[in-house]
Parts: sequence; structure tokens; C-alpha cells
Amino acid sequence: MNDHPLSESDLHRHFGRRGRDLPGRVLLPPGDDMAMLGIGSTDRLLVAADQVVIGRHVRVDEAPAAIGRKAVLRNLSDVAAMAARPIAILATATLSPDRDQRWAEALHAGLHETGLAFDAPLIGGDLATHARPETPDVISVTILARPGGEDGRVVTRHGAAAGDLLAVTGRLGGSLTEDGRGRHLDFPPRIEEAIALNALLRQDLVAMMDVSDGVARDAARLATTDGVGVRLDADRIPRNPGCDWRSAIGDGEDYELLIACRREPPGEIDGVPVTVIGRFESTPGTSGRVLIDADGESIDVAGLGWEHAGDPTDRTG
Amino acid sequence: MNDHPLSESDLHRHFGRRGRDLPGRVLLPPGDDMAMLGIGSTDRLLVAADQVVIGRHVRVDEAPAAIGRKAVLRNLSDVAAMAARPIAILATATLSPDRDQRWAEALHAGLHETGLAFDAPLIGGDLATHARPETPDVISVTILARPGGEDGRVVTRHGAAAGDLLAVTGRLGGSLTEDGRGRHLDFPPRIEEAIALNALLRQDLVAMMDVSDGVARDAARLATTDGVGVRLDADRIPRNPGCDWRSAIGDGEDYELLIACRREPPGEIDGVPVTVIGRFESTPGTSGRVLIDADGESIDVAGLGWEHAGDPTDRTG
Repeated sequence: MNDHPLSESDLHRHFGRRGRDLPGRVLLPPGDDMAMLGIGSTDRLLVAADQVVIGRHVRVDEAPAAIGRKAVLRNLSDVAAMAARPIAILATATLSPDRDQRWAEALHAGLHETGLAFDAPLIGGDLATHARPETPDVISVTILARPGGEDGRVVTRHGAAAGDLLAVTGRLGGSLTEDGRGRHLDFPPRIEEAIALNALLRQDLVAMMDVSDGVARDAARLATTDGVGVRLDADRIPRNPGCDWRSAIGDGEDYELLIACRREPPGEIDGVPVTVIGRFESTPGTSGRVLIDADGESIDVAGLGWEHAGDPTDRTG
Repeated sequence: MNDHPLSESDLHRHFGRRGRDLPGRVLLPPGDDMAMLGIGSTDRLLVAADQVVIGRHVRVDEAPAAIGRKAVLRNLSDVAAMAARPIAILATATLSPDRDQRWAEALHAGLHETGLAFDAPLIGGDLATHARPETPDVISVTILARPGGEDGRVVTRHGAAAGDLLAVTGRLGGSLTEDGRGRHLDFPPRIEEAIALNALLRQDLVAMMDVSDGVARDAARLATTDGVGVRLDADRIPRNPGCDWRSAIGDGEDYELLIACRREPPGEIDGVPVTVIGRFESTPGTSGRVLIDADGESIDVAGLGWEHAGDPTDRTG
């Protein structure tokens, strides 16, 4: 049966091809941090869905409220990436039948309270159990949002050109190490910072996404223009304590904003540092690649990013 | 750990209590077939999420395209229950790592093509794999909809009063039996019929839902007014071939419309029969109960409905 094993990236390419020719109300098709729909005559709705698989994205023995919280925060980070503002969430959960009532209520509290804290009430969903005991739980969260600014503008991943700056909020690396273990479970989604940057930079804020798989991998996702690649400067990467530049751009699960902009961004926004870490360029051989200038060398870091097939729980200790 | 075992109904009660005091944009809170949000100044958005757990809701060896199709159809039936019209879907899937690429692509085709056929394009989602082989797949689908009529009216589960008629579309029973095996996987969601009934009956169409757990159980969910219960007439239940009245109101997975109305509905709509099967009443001892007049007796049928804790796959073969 398994003559063609599952590959998430192959499947995403396949789904992308099938996601064309959608009705005109689909203003942004699948492929960005969120899709956008035209609702009625003027309103625009952003929507995304993401899941937390126990044993894959969090440890099996993690606290249920922390799992619920992470499931919502990941989606809120997608909202931030579009410079949008959340309005509601829905959640479905499939639990092992040997979970108890208290565990399920704590999971619900994590979803409900995290949503409310960001003005995104939990308004629906479904609960089911697996047919067999000891089958890992799956939590799926859908989030609805609206453009965050007065002008209705949202920021996609597309449009970065040679000469544009690449910047990042906060500090990177170590979210899954022993010391930084809690960070991938509880982080501040950069919603207000993204809306403020969008209001300040306007058309000069060209493209944006959130860093989930590490800058080394995610930066390539902003290099969507033909012939354009990214050059990072190792000395400028803002690092969490104990992280060298490799782990800072490779660890993933940072949930910071990765920004392509046409002019210098402010050095901080609402107290959160904004650091220029590189530049888009179109020189021979750089198209779609991410290079870093480090120790006098130019190193291709495509292999450093977070592998979707990997298991973060392997790396937590 | 399992001193208080999982009970879906206990949990739903718990979640219901916590779903109060939501922001004003939540026009219909959790608890109906869909929640409703106010978007912008005038637009109204309906949203619901549901899941298909392989091994619980469908057989493990079921065709992947049929699983995807059922996951979308279940949500479309919720849209019909509100007299709404779908606009888009999102889907997340957690697959066993020993599924192959072809299986995943066929699942996606089932989701994508069923959505498109009902003008509800698949606009986003997520794909992940379980950490362990042979862990059953979970498919979660979120659906977005808008009121189906010009006047923006949707139909909730609430408001049925003593004297209102109870009617149902189509025929009931046998969806999971050997003969009717395919019916729970592929059924026509009653979207156009619901919109037509809403346009025709207007305020006299008091409440509505879709039949997923069997009329015996679901009818009690329309008896939300204090002191009101339901009396069914066994001779009037429209049955699928081979079904007696017990299986017709108890089998579940019919996905027909269950309607409370203040005047006689049309006998059919778009070629689909609409049958009055009972009446809401408030006589001593009937509050919140479902009784059926059969064989000269008045029988309480609360226990006949589909049990959430049951496994339909046990009943298919």
C-alpha cells in the first residue's frame, strides 16, 4: 500500500495546483498564512485552520491547558502575519477514550481563555473520542479575522523584490531546548506590532509571515518573485540566550514576524525590537535560496530550517 | 487518572456554561447547528466545525474520497439546518504515517470536489501525520455560510411552542444497515429545500435542525421551551424500505431536516416530501420528552436515538 509514502510538501504542491479557479469571492487563495473572502459588498474575512497533534507538536504528557493555549496561539500568529485582528475561533478535538473529564475541561479552558484574552471567543466546534485507548489526541483550531487597519489592507507573503530589507521582530532560537522549553507553548502573538507596522510602513511593508519553521526555511517562502533570493547577515540575527546563529535561524517555533520592507523599519515597536537581518537580492545563483554571510563565508542554509517530518518532542529532552 | 471518565454530554453542558458572556458580535452562541457572527455593519456570517474520526464515524477501510465527501456533507447539512447557504470550507487532516500519497490525494479530492459542487471552495487547512503508524486518521472540516434568503433570516433550534407541528423532509432509517450502507456516506444536504421552506413559511417556520442522531433523540432538542414536549405519530413516519418506525426514528445519520412550524408545510418541496410526523404539546409529564403513539400505546422513545458513545462501524457489517 505504501509504494508512494506520504510527503507533506508534495501534497501541499498537489493541493496548490487544485486550489486554482476558485469563485471570485476568494480574494486570497490557499497558500498564504490565511485565506481571504469577500463577504457582502465591502467586508473582508480572513480565515485559517491549524492543528496540534499530541506526540508530534507537543509532548504526550504536556498539561492540557497548555496544549489548548498553544493551539490557539499558533493561529493567532497567522493572524498577526497578515496584519489582521482576530474575531473568533472554533475548535474540534478527538481525544483518546482514556482521557478523563478533568483533562478535557482543562483543554477547553486553554482554548476558551486564550481566545477570549485576544478578543477571539470560542464559538463552536466538536468533540469526539478515538475508537481505541491510547490513541494520541488531535486538536484542530480554525480562526476568523478581519484586516487590522482602517484601510482594510492585509499583508501577504508575495512581492518582495531585490533590494528590499528583511527584518524580524523579537529574538530567535531555543524555543525547544531544555532551557527554552516553555517558549513554544506560550509566546506573545505579534498582532498589535503587525498592525502598527502596517499603519506606519504602508506600501513599504511589502510582505510578511510568521516564523514557525525557522528563518532559514521561512525566508525562502518570502522569496517568491522570480530570480530573487535572500542574503542574511549572521552578526545581525537577534538571538535568545545560549543560541548561536545556526540555532537562531534553524530551531523554529519562534512565532516572530518576518518582514520584507522597502525602507528601514523602526528599531522597535511597542517595546519589541525590530531588527534588519538581511536583504533580498537577485544575483546569479541566489534565486529562491537563503544564504548567510558568516565567519567570512557565504553559506547556503536551506537545510537548517525545521523539517516538517521531524518530531519536536524528540528535541525537548 | 480515569476517575471521571469522558462523557461527551457532560462536557457539552460544561462548555455551554462557559460560552456565555461573549462579545456582542456573537449573534448566535455555540449550541445551535451553527454559530453566527456580525461582520462589519450589516453582514452576518455563520460558522460550524465538525469532524470525521476514522474507526468511529466511518470504517477504517472506507474509500478516502468517500470519507472526504462525508466530512463536507455533514457540515453542509448543518448549513441547511439554519436555512443558510455555504460560502467556503477549511479542512485539517491528521493521517497515519503509513497512509500513502494516493490515499491522501483522494481524501483531498473528496473534500475539494464536494465543496466545489456546493459552491463552498476549500480555501485552507493543514495536513499532519500522527507520530505512530496505524493510528486512525482524523478529518476536521470548518464551514462558513451566509443567511440563504433575501431578508437575512436564519432558523435556530429555539422557539417551538405547544401546538406547533413537527415535520421532516425525505424518508428516515436504515442509513447504516447492510442495504443502506452507502447512505450515511453520500446524501443530499437539504440546502435548497431549507431556503425554500424559509421563504415560504417565514415566521411560521419556528425552529429547525438536521437529523443526525435519529428523530427520537433530535426531536427533544427542538423542545427547548419550558414545559413543552413532542408527540409523534408512528403511522406518519416516512420510512425507508425495510425500516419499521423504531429504526426510522432511531437509526440516525439521516441528515434530513426536522422542522417545527406554526402552520401546515407544503407536502413536498423541489420534489422532496415534507411530512408532518407529530406535534409539540405541553401536557403534564411531557416536558422535554419525546412520546410516540404506536399500536394504541404512548411510548417514551428517548432511549431509541443514536448514542454518541456508540460505534457506527459496529453496525455496518
